[in-house]
Amino acid sequence: MLLLHLSDVDEASWAERMRAALAPYPVVRRGDAFDPADIAYIFVWKPKPDAFDGLVNLKAILSLGAGVDALLRNPALPDVPIVRFVDEDLSQRMSDYVVAQVTMHHRLYTRFRADQKARRWSQLYPPAASETTVGIMGFGVLGEDAARRLLALGFSVHGWSRSPKAMEGVTCFAGADEFEAFLAGTDILVNLLPLTPETAGILNYETFSRLRRGKLEGGPVIVNAARGGHQKEADIVRALEDGTLGAASLDVFEVEPLPAESPLWDIENCYVTPHIAAISSEKTGVVYFSRIIKDHEAGKPLINVVDRARGY
Amino acid sequence: MLLLHLSDVDEASWAERMRAALAPYPVVRRGDAFDPADIAYIFVWKPKPDAFDGLVNLKAILSLGAGVDALLRNPALPDVPIVRFVDEDLSQRMSDYVVAQVTMHHRLYTRFRADQKARRWSQLYPPAASETTVGIMGFGVLGEDAARRLLALGFSVHGWSRSPKAMEGVTCFAGADEFEAFLAGTDILVNLLPLTPETAGILNYETFSRLRRGKLEGGPVIVNAARGGHQKEADIVRALEDGTLGAASLDVFEVEPLPAESPLWDIENCYVTPHIAAISSEKTGVVYFSRIIKDHEAGKPLINVVDRARGY
Repeated sequence: MLLLHLSDVDEASWAERMRAALAPYPVVRRGDAFDPADIAYIFVWKPKPDAFDGLVNLKAILSLGAGVDALLRNPALPDVPIVRFVDEDLSQRMSDYVVAQVTMHHRLYTRFRADQKARRWSQLYPPAASETTVGIMGFGVLGEDAARRLLALGFSVHGWSRSPKAMEGVTCFAGADEFEAFLAGTDILVNLLPLTPETAGILNYETFSRLRRGKLEGGPVIVNAARGGHQKEADIVRALEDGTLGAASLDVFEVEPLPAESPLWDIENCYVTPHIAAISSEKTGVVYFSRIIKDHEAGKPLINVVDRARGY
Repeated sequence: MLLLHLSDVDEASWAERMRAALAPYPVVRRGDAFDPADIAYIFVWKPKPDAFDGLVNLKAILSLGAGVDALLRNPALPDVPIVRFVDEDLSQRMSDYVVAQVTMHHRLYTRFRADQKARRWSQLYPPAASETTVGIMGFGVLGEDAARRLLALGFSVHGWSRSPKAMEGVTCFAGADEFEAFLAGTDILVNLLPLTPETAGILNYETFSRLRRGKLEGGPVIVNAARGGHQKEADIVRALEDGTLGAASLDVFEVEPLPAESPLWDIENCYVTPHIAAISSEKTGVVYFSRIIKDHEAGKPLINVVDRARGY
């Protein structure tokens, strides 16, 4: 039996689609009458603290989010495999966000918008994409998808990850030892890392000060599409104000919703979006998770299982 | 002998590079001492009215711009082949501009920026690129390059051109008969047409009103990277104000520089840049035109010759 425990999304709609995809396999919601001992799978999004109470026969936790940092902090988390949601649709949406932000900054949006407001006609030719290096932190499924699309646009792409990776056309860096070299060649820094104790606060003033200067008019740029816990917002404010950064695109924040008193809202070269870079769609999510349950019930191994030691 | 006649660019720098590339073939500038009858090629950018005086032995005109509409209006234009500048570097830069504008609007930049200014956290998930159709008017070298890159990002791409074209993955429309069907399926309209009597003023209110509505939040969008003569600016102002268009990105204008009194400067959902979408770089331009002169002197035919009847 599958239990849905989804907050902040239309759980009824998910339940209807999941029932249709899994029938005759039973699917229940929190309010339904069921014996917790019958639950073999729980499908969660922002689960409440008591989500796992009584689930003594649980086989797996299915997480609608690609990031499981919040889930891993749940003190009552059962010791069963956690399956992350990673699919093409989610990668596509995340890359849509990343490419839009990267190309906007590469084309010097901040400068030309300021010129427009001043009714100033001042020609300046942005560099070609091939003259600009995008550095992607986090080179899993999402990072590789973004890299592939940025390569197709002609950008020079660098990747940085915990363990060594390889991708044709990408200069790959790995581990703490190569972090400085990675930053030194990066004009636009894109964060797609999982949030772990090692990556928390990685977007800080020291990181910003090591990015390449002199290639991109106005200064290097950061794009954070991962987690607010990766960024030190006081450092971002300081770096945008003193020119260490030319601009920042932030979709995530230390506290969400971003508090009304945050200075980030009012900084002209800070581009705030309300954590909408990418969401898992119901359609593809149902296809993905119903397939995982069916395969697992048929004896196949689970895919995209979180490594709790790594944190993703 | 090659004569350089370049306005508004660093002619001395071009001359130096061109001399190095063509040596020992002679290269002269306007101020130099030479016999006009010795000039076999003239390389022009915004030529003055008297540019062609006395060039009785001219073999070809080499145009630094990809668009030759202004050149063709020159009443003293000699009846020799005109070679346009079309190369990968120029296509790359034009696609850089087009992709940046398309992705910005696809990701609902205007809406999220307004929310930011109001300190409003209001989640809305933009459609995936695959759910959005970009319609490209003008399907020559530049249009095809933009299409290729937009396809790599996952967009649905439609093309419209004077004569029928074919490209894998692109739904192609041709001629006046299919213009309405092309517009009816387009969420973001990109103009890369040559400016001819047939295409002048094509970006008008009637065109805008035929674009697809209801797919892109805020309304359909136009991106003009071709010529100011393609657009009726009074119609753009009206369409942006009454919601017929959700936004416009304009790199070119009826009069350039855009006059300080133009209402376009102040419209929030109008994104003005000062004709900087793409410029021919000296490096690639010298390689391109020196090769053309050498090949032609060696007896090979000219490439990318303008068809004066078509106007491009």
